[in-house]
Amino acid sequence: MSRKKKNNGADFGEPGIRIIPLGGLEQIGMNMTAFEYKDSIIVVDCGLAFPDDEMYGIDLVIPDTTYLEENLEKVKGFVITHGHEDHIGALPYVLRNINVPVFGTKLTIGIIENKLREHKMLSTTSRYVVKFGESIPLGDFRVEFIRTNHSIVDAAALAITTEVGTVIHTGDFKVDYTPVFGDAIDLQRFAQLGMQGVLALLCDSTNSDHPGYTQSEKTVGKTIDRLFHEHENGRIIIATFASNVDRVQQIINSAHKHGRKVVIDGRSMVNVIETAQELKRISIPANTLVDVEMLKNIPDKKTVIITTGSQGESMAALSRMADDTHRKVTIKPGDTIIFSSHPIPGNEKAVTSVINKLSEKGADVIFQDVHVSGHPCQEEVKLIYSLVRPKYSVPVHGEFRHLRAQADLAADLGIPKEHIFLLRSGDVLEINQEHARQTDHVHVGSIMVDGTGVGDVGNAVLRDRQHLAEDGVIFVSLAVEDGVRELVAGPEIISRGVVYQKLSESEELMEEARDAVYDTVMQCLLKDMDNAHIVSAVKDTLTDFFWKRTKWRPMVLTTVLDV
Amino acid sequence: MSRKKKNNGADFGEPGIRIIPLGGLEQIGMNMTAFEYKDSIIVVDCGLAFPDDEMYGIDLVIPDTTYLEENLEKVKGFVITHGHEDHIGALPYVLRNINVPVFGTKLTIGIIENKLREHKMLSTTSRYVVKFGESIPLGDFRVEFIRTNHSIVDAAALAITTEVGTVIHTGDFKVDYTPVFGDAIDLQRFAQLGMQGVLALLCDSTNSDHPGYTQSEKTVGKTIDRLFHEHENGRIIIATFASNVDRVQQIINSAHKHGRKVVIDGRSMVNVIETAQELKRISIPANTLVDVEMLKNIPDKKTVIITTGSQGESMAALSRMADDTHRKVTIKPGDTIIFSSHPIPGNEKAVTSVINKLSEKGADVIFQDVHVSGHPCQEEVKLIYSLVRPKYSVPVHGEFRHLRAQADLAADLGIPKEHIFLLRSGDVLEINQEHARQTDHVHVGSIMVDGTGVGDVGNAVLRDRQHLAEDGVIFVSLAVEDGVRELVAGPEIISRGVVYQKLSESEELMEEARDAVYDTVMQCLLKDMDNAHIVSAVKDTLTDFFWKRTKWRPMVLTTVLDV
Repeated sequence: MSRKKKNNGADFGEPGIRIIPLGGLEQIGMNMTAFEYKDSIIVVDCGLAFPDDEMYGIDLVIPDTTYLEENLEKVKGFVITHGHEDHIGALPYVLRNINVPVFGTKLTIGIIENKLREHKMLSTTSRYVVKFGESIPLGDFRVEFIRTNHSIVDAAALAITTEVGTVIHTGDFKVDYTPVFGDAIDLQRFAQLGMQGVLALLCDSTNSDHPGYTQSEKTVGKTIDRLFHEHENGRIIIATFASNVDRVQQIINSAHKHGRKVVIDGRSMVNVIETAQELKRISIPANTLVDVEMLKNIPDKKTVIITTGSQGESMAALSRMADDTHRKVTIKPGDTIIFSSHPIPGNEKAVTSVINKLSEKGADVIFQDVHVSGHPCQEEVKLIYSLVRPKYSVPVHGEFRHLRAQADLAADLGIPKEHIFLLRSGDVLEINQEHARQTDHVHVGSIMVDGTGVGDVGNAVLRDRQHLAEDGVIFVSLAVEDGVRELVAGPEIISRGVVYQKLSESEELMEEARDAVYDTVMQCLLKDMDNAHIVSAVKDTLTDFFWKRTKWRPMVLTTVLDV
Repeated sequence: MSRKKKNNGADFGEPGIRIIPLGGLEQIGMNMTAFEYKDSIIVVDCGLAFPDDEMYGIDLVIPDTTYLEENLEKVKGFVITHGHEDHIGALPYVLRNINVPVFGTKLTIGIIENKLREHKMLSTTSRYVVKFGESIPLGDFRVEFIRTNHSIVDAAALAITTEVGTVIHTGDFKVDYTPVFGDAIDLQRFAQLGMQGVLALLCDSTNSDHPGYTQSEKTVGKTIDRLFHEHENGRIIIATFASNVDRVQQIINSAHKHGRKVVIDGRSMVNVIETAQELKRISIPANTLVDVEMLKNIPDKKTVIITTGSQGESMAALSRMADDTHRKVTIKPGDTIIFSSHPIPGNEKAVTSVINKLSEKGADVIFQDVHVSGHPCQEEVKLIYSLVRPKYSVPVHGEFRHLRAQADLAADLGIPKEHIFLLRSGDVLEINQEHARQTDHVHVGSIMVDGTGVGDVGNAVLRDRQHLAEDGVIFVSLAVEDGVRELVAGPEIISRGVVYQKLSESEELMEEARDAVYDTVMQCLLKDMDNAHIVSAVKDTLTDFFWKRTKWRPMVLTTVLDV
């Protein structure tokens, strides 16, 4: 593994392809990689990340695209590997400043169009549907879409070709020899490209620390079918990822076979399935889907509800069922609830809480072994490397430990360590047939989105939110007569998030706090201090008062009005 | 499983033992169970829970003990099974109102004394060390301490006897035939009590959904020893639970064998190990422990650091190493870092983040298979049931799904379903030789502790903190001349956690907000509205303004001063 210092490229010979990850390496999500050659830049994926626990009030996080904005005239387009949020979710924000065409396969573009429609950007964005095997020219690049398999239909790897050679980016993928929809990953094309010579392979690392193979999606279908057999006397509720069209297809197949009607519950899942139906990516027998309103007219044992909320998301349909706040579905003994998912890291506690609530209502909850991953385990990674035989290896998609696990695999397969690059976001890896080295580092970062404001919420605001969250706030107002500097009103004190104000003990405490502030203000005025000094003295007094009395550190804000 | 309605007990015959869980059933932690018979109450354990993510600013959570306070004259003592926080952590708070003696085994009382010393309550609390096999009379009860095994030394089960029969409470336990310190669980005594007749068994459910046996603690020692062999050329850092004395013992054994000096890092671990040394629960060879200051004088391959932080706790020693903020230890390539722990549910993301940071620094991080559980798997649960053969089964310790898994095991072992009780906190289960039924429900709850205030932070305060955390706060102050009702100062606006105020766009936005408030105030004054109406109108104006402009919903607070 090589992490060389940046280099001015003076001895680089023929110019190379510059590979610039703009996100997605230090964290799960926010996948975006720029490829730059001569006067052209193409951008692979444009994903969001979900906020960490400490990002109070933040809705989502997108990559900082300053580098692209500074080179706007070079940017030829966004090339999207598949329709998951961590690969497309930042588009509506990023396209505002970088309005270039978007390329993707059929379902991918369909899902992107839903998103653009919500943001009222459909008419201002060019979209192009690309077929597998098709190559599109983009400035100094040619990009071919290669069929892969993943937990969403129509996932693609990309063969990115310039005069100096071809780079393959796998996107998220797995090797599924028996996929539910469409064909298996196009291994022959990977082999063919490999025989022609591949400069670099950027390969999905998510499961690179897992030995063996990822199971076929069809194995989940068999499990679901068995569960339908075993639970034929009651209602079945299955939670899975909204975008996993193949999973929904298999549940519908089992439902149809067992004579059950299907309700799809949860807005995001309804949207994806409608799009998949329009684009013929799912096939639903007539008279199988029913509206949730119809449930009351059908015997429980003749119904299945497919729902969102498999990650314990508090507003999703399944969580509302667990909390008894779902308008149409009340959980009861006899219900079988199947989690067809694994908890994404960070969601374990929320998922467990939903499982317990459902279980307390007497439902039979099944949450193990009804899911397979959409990412390649070690044997699949080795297979792709062996077909492609790249000169350079650049593990992508995953936390650092996953990238490192893939780097170890690449080394085991005989790639020299100095040809394996563990990049960080912003690193510029420049490669050609002779050389590969980190020649530069560009500005990257995370932009936090709250409401419609993009980038308004910075770290200072987050720090304030954290302080407010942990300690609450005390607000003091008082009025001073201009000129004579006499207190003419206040101090009034309001608090929020500090004490429960209706308790008599709290009232006493706040009364004492007010007295302390009054004394401080009078002393300041005696000494003829200005308003800024009064604000600061009040803050010191209250901070000290609460710490001594209660070990609390509320935020203290003071306004001094001049009358 | 039986969940009967409460019953006035008129047909109950001979009075029964009342078993009243006051916490620990709906969640992990906060274990506390009252046993009441005639004029006596004893309380088994007095634990805390750690706050959920949404409990902003809360340090810890303790059970509401109103029921005990209302029956204070009956309460004879706290009987503690072992020294973990979820069994002892609430003592310093609960003893303030219920000052009765505390009983426990040697290390348990040692750890409790550390805690009481910190809270300056040592001189006001009676403590008694009880030996295994010893019975203590407590009012109408007799309580015998039975040796078990667990992830802390000196863990005990309790045989609680009254005139109407014996109830066994296992506490947290596992069956370890080859424990590191002391003897294996006293299975013979469980058998003997079983032969004499046991009315009810309250058994640990934590792992009741895991088949098989929990491995012996000694297997971890072997793994650690193997890792010492395999990583003999660099420094070794091992993170584990501060209270797992046996684990520390085994690490020290391997260190001694391989000629390494040992540093113990992290205040809570240093405290426990010092207490264990004083009480002869750990045996450390002379010249093995060294101070962290000495590290710079010893070759890396001759050192081991045992540290806290295996759960990714942000202030613990290991997290500080990962963040480069540890004063004495800098992680470097060649270091081997071993997590001798599993993440507790909810901590997965924090642990993963620490692993990635350490891994990025070039350390070799080992985080799988260097830990065993301290709780019984299904075969051990079956063993205890088969020795004790209780008339009634009351699964305890665990989330609802765990309790239910144990109930299923009890049923498999032939206990009639109507003799198995899945209680909720507050349920009163009354049992004697003829009957067992839920006869009552008492007040229970969770009290959130923030700083030194116990119970001051209620749900209203938490809701405010959540609102502040997610949306920030805007304060408006203005002054109105009394009588004539004219605006004489303000409106002034301060915000925190809403926008980054130094941006010019933010300044413009806040200026417009101020103008909107000004117009509202002037209209209110024209209509001769009182201050309460002005406050309400300002709130409506700003809420509307920010939602329309930015989709934000800041908290709005207004003070109107009368001059």
